[in-house]
Amino acid sequence: MPPLITLTTDFGLSDVYVGVMKGVIFGVCPDARVIDLTHGIPAQNLIAGSLALESAIPYFPAGTIHVVVVDPGVGSDRNIVIVRTESSLFVAPDNGVLTLPLILQPPKEMIKLTEAASPFLRQPVSATFHGRDVFAPVAAHLASGMPPSSLGSPCAISEVISIPVPKVEISEMNDLIELRAPILAADHFGNLVTALTRDALDSLCASVASEAPRESEVEVRVKSAIWTGVAKTFASAPVGAPVAYWGSGGRLEVAVRNGSAVMTLEALAGDFVCLQWKSKTAQQPI
Amino acid sequence: MPPLITLTTDFGLSDVYVGVMKGVIFGVCPDARVIDLTHGIPAQNLIAGSLALESAIPYFPAGTIHVVVVDPGVGSDRNIVIVRTESSLFVAPDNGVLTLPLILQPPKEMIKLTEAASPFLRQPVSATFHGRDVFAPVAAHLASGMPPSSLGSPCAISEVISIPVPKVEISEMNDLIELRAPILAADHFGNLVTALTRDALDSLCASVASEAPRESEVEVRVKSAIWTGVAKTFASAPVGAPVAYWGSGGRLEVAVRNGSAVMTLEALAGDFVCLQWKSKTAQQPI
Amino acid sequence: MPPLITLTTDFGLSDVYVGVMKGVIFGVCPDARVIDLTHGIPAQNLIAGSLALESAIPYFPAGTIHVVVVDPGVGSDRNIVIVRTESSLFVAPDNGVLTLPLILQPPKEMIKLTEAASPFLRQPVSATFHGRDVFAPVAAHLASGMPPSSLGSPCAISEVISIPVPKVEISEMNDLIELRAPILAADHFGNLVTALTRDALDSLCASVASEAPRESEVEVRVKSAIWTGVAKTFASAPVGAPVAYWGSGGRLEVAVRNGSAVMTLEALAGDFVCLQWKSKTAQQPI
Repeated sequence: MPPLITLTTDFGLSDVYVGVMKGVIFGVCPDARVIDLTHGIPAQNLIAGSLALESAIPYFPAGTIHVVVVDPGVGSDRNIVIVRTESSLFVAPDNGVLTLPLILQPPKEMIKLTEAASPFLRQPVSATFHGRDVFAPVAAHLASGMPPSSLGSPCAISEVISIPVPKVEISEMNDLIELRAPILAADHFGNLVTALTRDALDSLCASVASEAPRESEVEVRVKSAIWTGVAKTFASAPVGAPVAYWGSGGRLEVAVRNGSAVMTLEALAGDFVCLQWKSKTAQQPI
Repeated sequence: MPPLITLTTDFGLSDVYVGVMKGVIFGVCPDARVIDLTHGIPAQNLIAGSLALESAIPYFPAGTIHVVVVDPGVGSDRNIVIVRTESSLFVAPDNGVLTLPLILQPPKEMIKLTEAASPFLRQPVSATFHGRDVFAPVAAHLASGMPPSSLGSPCAISEVISIPVPKVEISEMNDLIELRAPILAADHFGNLVTALTRDALDSLCASVASEAPRESEVEVRVKSAIWTGVAKTFASAPVGAPVAYWGSGGRLEVAVRNGSAVMTLEALAGDFVCLQWKSKTAQQPI
Repeated sequence: MPPLITLTTDFGLSDVYVGVMKGVIFGVCPDARVIDLTHGIPAQNLIAGSLALESAIPYFPAGTIHVVVVDPGVGSDRNIVIVRTESSLFVAPDNGVLTLPLILQPPKEMIKLTEAASPFLRQPVSATFHGRDVFAPVAAHLASGMPPSSLGSPCAISEVISIPVPKVEISEMNDLIELRAPILAADHFGNLVTALTRDALDSLCASVASEAPRESEVEVRVKSAIWTGVAKTFASAPVGAPVAYWGSGGRLEVAVRNGSAVMTLEALAGDFVCLQWKSKTAQQPI
């Protein structure tokens, strides 16, 4: 049985683009199993695509082939890469969309498509629909067992483009610790996804010799809204109130229950979710 | 070949949630066949989820596993149940979302998930995404042949929560029979779905010693709109006019052709579609 | 392995209709492979359905069964046809929705469903949901190997209904050639799809003894907007500017980069994209 193929695009589902990619895949690999990860990535939004992959790939069987077509450079001379990690194979434009998943699963092998791939592509390759003419047939040939090296040339991992991911900053002043987590994206519910992961929280706290704050006591601030506590789930908040919680993808998120945090808090990617708490030292003076 | 698995959620398709559930399913049961029933249930709307299942399950092969994640109580102490009927297996939160399908297909066996299921769940189980961590792996293990009893404890059918379904009322006054059918939900076209089924119509009429009315002669009333006749299909109505018809799910529905009954009639769940006709006795006095 | 089945409908994805069709298909043909081509055809829009199929079918393996349910006449006495071409099998209402795909792939065999199909349909056949009761089981039986002739009677290709497709017109005046390409549809991005294909361009030019224009020099006009050049891709246009390009479906399209051509140009199906260029003779007088 060939490995799973997942598709992540910004094509939406109103047109035939996704269906056509599947037609091409089944033409090459008749017993393929294809899963739509999402086709709702906002147009050309690389960080949203990267977050979607990061939150999904841990839940797929080893060997799964993840095809990503968030590709503002289609038709230009951008590269297309095949990246092998311990448990996944990615096929994506070399534009940084793999940045977050490759932090989670470090690359073991990296191939740039070259002319060697030509016999395996849909010819003639169009200028606008590489999902159909390049990504789909490449994924299907990989699923059929073709080694990535038959489709291009190895390249150094350092050659691959990554996008800058805004960093979480921590600071200490008097007896207060403040952590500023940039908002990376909003999902379609209007929930805000931040750059802060649980792991990062621990290492940031260690860097200022603090322990992680008690979740019930931390003060949360987004723009002019301030409240206390990181909740276990957004279901615990009153309707209409903002709530911070650890999202199922492992990142700190802010939602407004039965509403939109984007609208209610007037916050967007580029803004910050700030956490503030009293440092342990100050709380427990010797 | 393992049984079909269907998925019914309020997750929408813009995010990776549904794709991730499928990744988990295929990890457990590689030759699963998974069908999206719908992911467009309005958020946390149990009656809409129940109606969707009721209208769909008769059309699936025996043994199909229906997974339902319309789950306002995720993260709370609500139970998760596996329910076996003559022809289906359901995996759902015990919150009443199965009320209508279990009227259609009475339960034969009912299991509440217990600690016994732990080894088969995605660990650690998150507080917010049981679709991924509980429902998907449970369904996949069932599809692989695991008996429900390996995942929990049997419980009495009467223990399972059901939601109150508004009842259709019939009354007779002078020579007129009036039937009041509560509107249960509106679909995304703005069509109104009522509590009245064809079977119920017959037994209600029998209760007042009437025969079912002639469909062409019955008077239909929704809020301030009144018209005559239950049509064979909504296609028979003039554009912009309201029309009552038997929906493909077996219930009386009201639509506005090329428009929205919700908007045009200003009617919603909780309002009524009323049918009125002359009683046979009055029409044909001996 | 049975042939692929694709589904093209105007059902949307909010309701269970598409899932139910798949339940019926898998009940008949358990090892079916079903692909959603699109369920986003605008309600009852035959030309949009026809364009969707035209742009998709060349990319499917030989023998694929394409099911089309864009069916304003459901419940009326319109026919349902099975059409075999060199590489596809179509199941569709006989309402013209197959017009464009059958220009691309001329029909070899045409069957109208008759009473002979009755034992293979979901009984009782509803008045409103032939997708479930007729199209799905017919497609599944075809996928299982049943010959189309078992389901109905052969009919002449000329009997099948086709819809008028607006024609591209070319004219020459003085040293200018002008080509008027009707807009057939807008996709959900607001891109305009025209009646002009590359092949048609060549034969139209030949008809006025011209060569095809240089793409960089042609003047493009839509309503009051005028610009120069047909681009290789829409990515080459400045944000907010209109751009004409050859779409991946083989037709001339007009988009507004990061915007909607429908909104910006105030153009719709029925309007025209006009191309104008200097005739070769005039440019190179002997």
